[in-house]
Amino acid sequence: MSGPDPDLLSLNTATVREQWNLRQMIEGCARHRIRGIAPWRDKLAAHGTKDAARMMRDHGLVCTGLCRGGMFPASDRKGRKAAIEDNLRAIEDAATLEAKCLVLAVGGLPPGSKDIAGAREMVRDGIGEILDHARGSGVPLAIEPLHPMYAADRACVNTLAQALDLCDELDSARSGALGVIVGVYHVWWDPELERLIERAGDKRLLGYHICDWLVPTTDLLLDRGMMGDGVIDLPLIRSWMERAGYRGFHEVEILSKNNWWKREGDEVLLTCKLRHETAS
Amino acid sequence: MSGPDPDLLSLNTATVREQWNLRQMIEGCARHRIRGIAPWRDKLAAHGTKDAARMMRDHGLVCTGLCRGGMFPASDRKGRKAAIEDNLRAIEDAATLEAKCLVLAVGGLPPGSKDIAGAREMVRDGIGEILDHARGSGVPLAIEPLHPMYAADRACVNTLAQALDLCDELDSARSGALGVIVGVYHVWWDPELERLIERAGDKRLLGYHICDWLVPTTDLLLDRGMMGDGVIDLPLIRSWMERAGYRGFHEVEILSKNNWWKREGDEVLLTCKLRHETAS
Repeated sequence: MSGPDPDLLSLNTATVREQWNLRQMIEGCARHRIRGIAPWRDKLAAHGTKDAARMMRDHGLVCTGLCRGGMFPASDRKGRKAAIEDNLRAIEDAATLEAKCLVLAVGGLPPGSKDIAGAREMVRDGIGEILDHARGSGVPLAIEPLHPMYAADRACVNTLAQALDLCDELDSARSGALGVIVGVYHVWWDPELERLIERAGDKRLLGYHICDWLVPTTDLLLDRGMMGDGVIDLPLIRSWMERAGYRGFHEVEILSKNNWWKREGDEVLLTCKLRHETAS
Repeated sequence: MSGPDPDLLSLNTATVREQWNLRQMIEGCARHRIRGIAPWRDKLAAHGTKDAARMMRDHGLVCTGLCRGGMFPASDRKGRKAAIEDNLRAIEDAATLEAKCLVLAVGGLPPGSKDIAGAREMVRDGIGEILDHARGSGVPLAIEPLHPMYAADRACVNTLAQALDLCDELDSARSGALGVIVGVYHVWWDPELERLIERAGDKRLLGYHICDWLVPTTDLLLDRGMMGDGVIDLPLIRSWMERAGYRGFHEVEILSKNNWWKREGDEVLLTCKLRHETAS
């Protein structure tokens, strides 16, 4: 199996969020010849979206995604309306950045609720409400199914099958305005993964996020591994993406409280670059 | 929705494994009028299987399952053979206990492996190898799909769909010799759960394990919640089990390092009994 194109590496800023501000991240990417970047909105807010967009352009960086929209479920109508408004602002930011997509972490159960089917309806309705605006702004919406261990508190869309069903329901024409992120951390275990990537196809594969699953994993959220340090067969999953027609970036997103967040930012980026070539 | 029959409560001994030995667990169940018990093999070993069986009989307890067989994948033929032999011993123990089933936690990736498809084949082959012996011993084998967060190190069967596909492949006649455990902790998030329980049907629903999913969950393995303390809609899932024809026990299995394992065994059992009636 041939290695990945090094030019397709992208840095999700969560990977060095404890070390650097957005300017440092952008300069770091340029220094290490990483061509893509996917900022989180908290990092964006510190600089202003227009300045951030200019900095990325000046350094020749592609914005592979904005993290994140979503978080639709809420206990009452007011909360759901506030979520919609926040998503509309995120779409504007994504448009300014010329982001390849707005990543949707769709949200979990409202506080006190045990109604996961109801939360899933709120997600469908929420995406439905913002889809036209996103389409008009030229910002594809990318549903990222999150690992089932986040079903309660982060995202009640937990499999690629479920995300693709939503796409079928809300964008049956496969217009390209709605698709999915394949985040290996979230879906690597799925026995249907190969078939589901094929089902998604080029039109709906809006992003590919890489990292690794460590054994043991010591924290549900902040113990992700660097590519090659865990048990995910990354070259195999990439081959499925490529066979389905995906030609986009490979975005590294590593939340790692006790390891990578404690290292120098440059060491992290160097390692991402190396492991992208040798273990992805 | 009517409450569950209190006589259907069963205690999985993991729930008080840090407090009591098997004799104390059996006496505790009798004292609290809990009619079922599901021992782990380590607790069994301390007493001897025949003595344990006699103690259970003497106290009128039903053995709702033996925990556990499985753990089939291994790096080499010798390791896989050792796993088979261990499973055959577990079947003998389950027969002696007149257990309703032998619970299979099927095992994850062999050390150093990233081949989850290969591990899944080893699981299929392993179950295939022991099925005739189990049938001959009158011990149904119950595949328990474990939560996807255990795919690497505990079980590479992670959805009810996958477990039922295995049943279809290995016991297409639906003889009752092979089925599944519905453990709410592992499958509550599955958008297909209702349909899959219906698909399993009475013949293949060999057990029902209850506890709760806490928000936040602070440990991947040892932070399960007491029924009612988390976000799982237990009465709803029970209603699906009942509609599918399940009439068996409701087995409480709570691994809780920092909470329930630190309390008096009698307090734990009292709470199980109460929450079974009010929140399950």
